[in-house]
Amino acid sequence: MSADQTRKEIIESLTSEGQELLRKLKEGKNPEVSIPLRTLSNVYFDEKDHLIKLGNKAQKRSFFKSGQAKKFMQTMLIAAQIKELLQQDQPALSTRQLYYTLKHSIPGLKENTFDDQATESDPIIEDIEVMIDYLREQLNLVAVPKGVISGPLVMEDVKTEDIIDYTKMGTAGGAVPPSVEKDVLKIKECSADYILVVEKFAVWNLLNQQRYWKKNNCILLTGKGQPARAERRLLARFGKELNIPIYCFCDMDIYGYYIYSVYKQGSINLAFFSEKAGCPRAKYLGFSMDDVKKFDIPKSSWINLDKHDIKRLSEVAKYDWFKKKEWQAELKKLRDFGYKIESDALVSKKIDFTAKEYLPHKIENKLFLD
Amino acid sequence: MSADQTRKEIIESLTSEGQELLRKLKEGKNPEVSIPLRTLSNVYFDEKDHLIKLGNKAQKRSFFKSGQAKKFMQTMLIAAQIKELLQQDQPALSTRQLYYTLKHSIPGLKENTFDDQATESDPIIEDIEVMIDYLREQLNLVAVPKGVISGPLVMEDVKTEDIIDYTKMGTAGGAVPPSVEKDVLKIKECSADYILVVEKFAVWNLLNQQRYWKKNNCILLTGKGQPARAERRLLARFGKELNIPIYCFCDMDIYGYYIYSVYKQGSINLAFFSEKAGCPRAKYLGFSMDDVKKFDIPKSSWINLDKHDIKRLSEVAKYDWFKKKEWQAELKKLRDFGYKIESDALVSKKIDFTAKEYLPHKIENKLFLD
Repeated sequence: MSADQTRKEIIESLTSEGQELLRKLKEGKNPEVSIPLRTLSNVYFDEKDHLIKLGNKAQKRSFFKSGQAKKFMQTMLIAAQIKELLQQDQPALSTRQLYYTLKHSIPGLKENTFDDQATESDPIIEDIEVMIDYLREQLNLVAVPKGVISGPLVMEDVKTEDIIDYTKMGTAGGAVPPSVEKDVLKIKECSADYILVVEKFAVWNLLNQQRYWKKNNCILLTGKGQPARAERRLLARFGKELNIPIYCFCDMDIYGYYIYSVYKQGSINLAFFSEKAGCPRAKYLGFSMDDVKKFDIPKSSWINLDKHDIKRLSEVAKYDWFKKKEWQAELKKLRDFGYKIESDALVSKKIDFTAKEYLPHKIENKLFLD
Repeated sequence: MSADQTRKEIIESLTSEGQELLRKLKEGKNPEVSIPLRTLSNVYFDEKDHLIKLGNKAQKRSFFKSGQAKKFMQTMLIAAQIKELLQQDQPALSTRQLYYTLKHSIPGLKENTFDDQATESDPIIEDIEVMIDYLREQLNLVAVPKGVISGPLVMEDVKTEDIIDYTKMGTAGGAVPPSVEKDVLKIKECSADYILVVEKFAVWNLLNQQRYWKKNNCILLTGKGQPARAERRLLARFGKELNIPIYCFCDMDIYGYYIYSVYKQGSINLAFFSEKAGCPRAKYLGFSMDDVKKFDIPKSSWINLDKHDIKRLSEVAKYDWFKKKEWQAELKKLRDFGYKIESDALVSKKIDFTAKEYLPHKIENKLFLD
């Protein structure tokens, strides 16, 4: 679907919600909207699609109900503002900026429309996302991106008409923009053989300086630790639009494994985002338990698991998306081993060990966890 | 000084330190190095240069002294490794990666060379920086950058030979690389009339989408809140190499004022870095107390100062670099006013208010704090 069409559909969807409410009001009925629940009880792991998703439970929010009137008004204000800004083709805003455009005193009352972003406007923005089934970024509300990319990839920034060639971005790499939706970013060319997602910036930076992407014809992406929305959504688009393998290279610890799972299946607390921003094709390249012996990682690079690691290990082991026997085995091995190993630590072998030995061996021999 | 010459000088400096120690050892003397103190007692504000600097106090670290031998050995290991990596023209590493290259068991002992990065190797890296008077980045040890830039500026990435034109970087902007030293980044062309440093990414993002830099012929830089080392050092280079005004646009709160002061004079806890990464020419454009009335900012956008704000206000008011009467007056006004105003809040006037009214008015009429 083209970007313009998406925008048109969003405006239509918001308009028809509004018209339906008006109709009810005119008929003397209580206007209400149905909003899918975003609580844990309505989140599930879809094994077929390999994504964390939102279920079908919904709640009603109505105008003439004690305790709901203000929230109902706020919902209408935000929905109307989103529609208006889209119609005016305004630049994308942060959710804080949207909040400020709507925060004002109400004539005749001693109350403001909104008094707090985190507890009032942000949850309602999410309500509207799930209500009309579009992501916040499609509603032109963006978050701060973190990541950088390099490799044989050319994208067009549709808004500015710049053509960005990620082989020419220097040691910096190309910045991931705040929105990677189709109305902003078009994938023009990609001759890469695979995509390597690197958890840590320091590891990405070493590989980028060594021109790993050039020697191995791949795309190198990092979200600098826990990725922001933009990097997750970009990887999801790569997963759908580029027909090449996707590998994640993280720390061999429970946080590294979990970051991989966020890229792949998403996260519980952003289930609605996850079903649109997950990348189920992503595979875990390493660092993994079998690598410790195989690559003879010196004991001085092992770090004792502490009680937080062990607690988190138990929690993660219970997630449905870690239930596969390969992952249960990996987590058990890690706990029995009693140590974690960071992806940075591979420099202790040799500075070019990761680029010249570790990654090529893993990829050639398809030594992944899925 | 050329980048190659800098590197040569660093290698020579480290070599001569090592030779001096060897000479002392051969003479049967106790080898020792003199390391400038990085404690608060050795930090001062240089009013003439308008920079936070490190004083002349130093401490000796010697080999044959109880409690210093291990630290002395660690200092030698790190200095030797830095020299070796520079000589081999290795890629830049993070300080964690450097730590891993040196962390190993010591044959015959039950001890490792290093057991902790934060308490062992990182402070020694800083010791070596101040000892030989070069920044960590010049020693090829980099931190994670955060910022993005757009505007009429062309830089060359010397390492990759890429020419990066910051008018062609799309909605993403161009990423600031981890090292902005002369051996990596060369400023090729700049036709901008001024540099606008924007505290917050959301504000930068709005201005960048509105092509503010094009309509006003300026460079737009953000460090996404508290800037990382790379953005501070880049602004320092702009300050020295580009003969154009530099303005900072931050929140009207004590944290915004402080971020401006970090760009301008540096910070106490990184005094050695500050004298090389400050930008004394930077001026504070706003948001400031006089703007509240002048631009009629609605009360709904004011946020009550809380007790943390007030405590921090008192602390900052005592810093030597806020002692100027204009700043003392500004801080007093803020405290008396009792509210803070975020730079994001200007969208409450109009979405293009910042770009079309606020910034042009302030710049045309030179309404800055210095």
